Amino acid sequence: MRAHALAAALDGRLIGRADAEVSRAVHPLEASCDGDVAIAVSPDTIRILDESRAKIALVLEGAKFPDQRFQTVIVVRGSRSSLPKITDVFRYRPDVQPGVHPSAVVAPDAVIGEGATIGPLVVIGPGASVGPHSTILSQATLAAGATLGTDCLVYPGVRIGWGCRVGDRAVLHHNASIGADGFSFVPTRPGALEAAQGAGSGALAKSERNELQKVHTLSIVEIGDDVEVGALTAIDRGTLKPTRIGSGTKIDDLVMIGHNVEIGVDCLLCGQVGLAGGVIVGDGAVLGGRVGVADHLKIGAWAVVAAAACVGTNVPAGAVYAGYPAVPRAEAMENLKLMRRVRRLVARLTEVRSGGVEGLQANTDNNGGRPWERR
Amino acid sequence: MRAHALAAALDGRLIGRADAEVSRAVHPLEASCDGDVAIAVSPDTIRILDESRAKIALVLEGAKFPDQRFQTVIVVRGSRSSLPKITDVFRYRPDVQPGVHPSAVVAPDAVIGEGATIGPLVVIGPGASVGPHSTILSQATLAAGATLGTDCLVYPGVRIGWGCRVGDRAVLHHNASIGADGFSFVPTRPGALEAAQGAGSGALAKSERNELQKVHTLSIVEIGDDVEVGALTAIDRGTLKPTRIGSGTKIDDLVMIGHNVEIGVDCLLCGQVGLAGGVIVGDGAVLGGRVGVADHLKIGAWAVVAAAACVGTNVPAGAVYAGYPAVPRAEAMENLKLMRRVRRLVARLTEVRSGGVEGLQANTDNNGGRPWERR
Amino acid sequence: MRAHALAAALDGRLIGRADAEVSRAVHPLEASCDGDVAIAVSPDTIRILDESRAKIALVLEGAKFPDQRFQTVIVVRGSRSSLPKITDVFRYRPDVQPGVHPSAVVAPDAVIGEGATIGPLVVIGPGASVGPHSTILSQATLAAGATLGTDCLVYPGVRIGWGCRVGDRAVLHHNASIGADGFSFVPTRPGALEAAQGAGSGALAKSERNELQKVHTLSIVEIGDDVEVGALTAIDRGTLKPTRIGSGTKIDDLVMIGHNVEIGVDCLLCGQVGLAGGVIVGDGAVLGGRVGVADHLKIGAWAVVAAAACVGTNVPAGAVYAGYPAVPRAEAMENLKLMRRVRRLVARLTEVRSGGVEGLQANTDNNGGRPWERR
Repeated sequence: MRAHALAAALDGRLIGRADAEVSRAVHPLEASCDGDVAIAVSPDTIRILDESRAKIALVLEGAKFPDQRFQTVIVVRGSRSSLPKITDVFRYRPDVQPGVHPSAVVAPDAVIGEGATIGPLVVIGPGASVGPHSTILSQATLAAGATLGTDCLVYPGVRIGWGCRVGDRAVLHHNASIGADGFSFVPTRPGALEAAQGAGSGALAKSERNELQKVHTLSIVEIGDDVEVGALTAIDRGTLKPTRIGSGTKIDDLVMIGHNVEIGVDCLLCGQVGLAGGVIVGDGAVLGGRVGVADHLKIGAWAVVAAAACVGTNVPAGAVYAGYPAVPRAEAMENLKLMRRVRRLVARLTEVRSGGVEGLQANTDNNGGRPWERR
Repeated sequence: MRAHALAAALDGRLIGRADAEVSRAVHPLEASCDGDVAIAVSPDTIRILDESRAKIALVLEGAKFPDQRFQTVIVVRGSRSSLPKITDVFRYRPDVQPGVHPSAVVAPDAVIGEGATIGPLVVIGPGASVGPHSTILSQATLAAGATLGTDCLVYPGVRIGWGCRVGDRAVLHHNASIGADGFSFVPTRPGALEAAQGAGSGALAKSERNELQKVHTLSIVEIGDDVEVGALTAIDRGTLKPTRIGSGTKIDDLVMIGHNVEIGVDCLLCGQVGLAGGVIVGDGAVLGGRVGVADHLKIGAWAVVAAAACVGTNVPAGAVYAGYPAVPRAEAMENLKLMRRVRRLVARLTEVRSGGVEGLQANTDNNGGRPWERR
Repeated sequence: MRAHALAAALDGRLIGRADAEVSRAVHPLEASCDGDVAIAVSPDTIRILDESRAKIALVLEGAKFPDQRFQTVIVVRGSRSSLPKITDVFRYRPDVQPGVHPSAVVAPDAVIGEGATIGPLVVIGPGASVGPHSTILSQATLAAGATLGTDCLVYPGVRIGWGCRVGDRAVLHHNASIGADGFSFVPTRPGALEAAQGAGSGALAKSERNELQKVHTLSIVEIGDDVEVGALTAIDRGTLKPTRIGSGTKIDDLVMIGHNVEIGVDCLLCGQVGLAGGVIVGDGAVLGGRVGVADHLKIGAWAVVAAAACVGTNVPAGAVYAGYPAVPRAEAMENLKLMRRVRRLVARLTEVRSGGVEGLQANTDNNGGRPWERR
């Protein structure tokens, strides 16, 4: 691609050499080849442009930078939010040949859409179907009766279980699991656990079994259009109805989505999020990294849950929650401030007591951290 | 299957058409075909039965519901705990042909039991053995010397490392890892870390290396009978003795079980649980979602640890723990209440100070949240 | 191997039969065969040596133990830190034949180094290269243009994405993902989320979409030498510069490393750690199990973050942090003590109030846990 074509694709203005060949988009300090385009769409990256060895720079309209340093400069309108458009020009497009690789194992009755690519060592089960122009890169599995929509990109090692349905334009990353069984068991002696706890020592239960009987998860996973599923993420199938992921929802790596969960459209679930069975997440909700939600709770539409929060109550629509356990963010912040105040208060009261405030007599605090023990 | 056969299988009573064909068990609102059986064994699902488009319903004895709505009703005794039995009738049974798929790579000296199925693109290493009637669906690995018992079901992408042993009737889900190396390293300069910390800035250590030497984990993973391992769960091998998982224990997705861990029988480990090296878990213990346990701790038999708890001490048999750090649940609840009380107390004392209580003088609180600073 | 050779390899002293055959290194209580060597290099294991059925023991110089019990005793200098050396003698070395297994799918232009082993059902993409004497066990993927150094060991199911670079002597465990896309999206209507939150109910946004546009992660993952990556760990590629893992760094299972992260040399990242996008970790840092670090933060060189800590601020070099949110460990410990003090203080003040301290009147506390409500 030439610089002028890049400028045109981004609706930008070109300064300098228009026919320079562009090959890669890079951070200014990573440029090493002639075709590298230093992308500087944030104050941080603009500031370091003069240290870049790039010959081509892409900057935002209005930015001040050492333009004489570059042979070619492309100026675009917008902000950091232009990155989707800019990076789309350069994005990875697997170099594949449509058709079924001879090493793939495809059931005779599976349906492979026009222009679809089934890569090496892929398994497509009986009755499964792959939509037109979808690419399954290698070593992935589409089990019996499962369906994949059009224009999907499936990375190596992805497992799509029997009967599960994935919509159009899905991107499924390395080793993700769609449609493993849910985790639901019933003890054969339901009271035994409580009895053991009542007994305190647990000793009485030592020699006994309390086998766990499986509730089979008979339904599937149903994924809308334009969904992205991160590497090593697990989405379990539902018991009597599908686990559902709405269109446009993006899920990061190592996320766990339990059985019967229902997620709305355009949600963001960051890395290592965990949703227990039956959780319902409204449209547009954002769950920060490592958020956990206990079973059967509801996260309202457009709610935001801050990273690492552990949710043990419903979260209203539009609310912002944080903390352990999660509470409205303002309250979580207040709790943290409160701890600092309390520390000072305790220090102060310790002094007051030493001075003999009425009704509060000082102990000799010689047993480490127990000054408030009454005499 | 006909409705009368289903009723008989569940020891239930049939009302209406006995020869109706049943095909799927579904949530009442998911019914769309004639063969769909609306399962209503909870108050919630019974309440919505009149909105169901199903022609067949399965309900609990004594439930009130619009029975004239259905052509066939099957009435069973029991409760929600009947779900294992009900769902077992309908559970997924892979449609496979016993034998070794021609695309599988099986070592000449591997032992494949009678009636076992080795699916496409599976690898079975030298000296490994698969028990009778076990099914390995596709693309999974049983490494050198590993053994799998009878009647197991292994989903695609499961990795069972060299020498590991899995008992009978195991169910291993997508991409689970049994027998990766444990995580144990010894620094070459053990004091360097402390020195750097003593120095505060850490600057002195900047240019130096402190290479980490691996303690090789020489032993295996040993899994009892009737164990289920969730998708993307890792169970690491032991150093000088096996990492052991007792019979009947069920493990959810994305769980991490470190080297040398020993887990008793009939335990439940929910999603994203993490057990560091050397943890011992007694029989029948229940670890809620995302529970973490620090290395070498003991969780007593029949103990319950609530979701998201971070365990930093031993947990006695039969105890119920919760929180960060985990404490007895009653104490954890009390701590939460305490924070609410303290908030009110601090608010009250702030007022008292403003009024000039002896020894506590009000600051002009103009530095944000520091009212307890002494003058 | 004979006992005298083992003693020589460990620079140890031999007592008893020198030509005894040694086969396995085991915990004293796990010995069952003649060739088993009971390893007792800790007080705990020395104490139980007299219960061992081993005929050969390996102990530390100076340890007291029932030596007449064993036919052969090997005495080594050192401590528990000798385990790397001891276990290295016995470590697993896969029994493989150099060369490309006929079932592997290797692009014609891929470069396979001398003495390298490409196991069954492995995929090596166009332009990829595998260094000399590296072993890829089975069913793993090295995508287009990716490179693997010399003497590496790659376990089944590992996925190395297009263009990623892994150095020498790497050990990559079951199903790890190197180079999945980063998680970075920009909403089409950026203000919509805030508007919904301002509106409180979120109702206004119910019917609207707010599509998420992907920032493509165009760069790669770059891994130094002597790095270990645990089972089911994900390391995402960078946006405009590589995600970088320094030489000598060891990463446990189920760890998530976001896009643009940079990790120094000789770091330890324990199980289930999560680093959000752009995090920088200095040389020699140690992150305990389940530590989470929010995006763009810096963990200084030689810092230690205790297990389960959730880091929301930069951590200085050489510092030790702990807690939720993470603070210097001393402060975290103090906070826990503080809660205990506060509990006693509140109990005390409740009594004081009941007694009628000026300005603090007792409520009739009949609404459960609200004794500090003012009248």
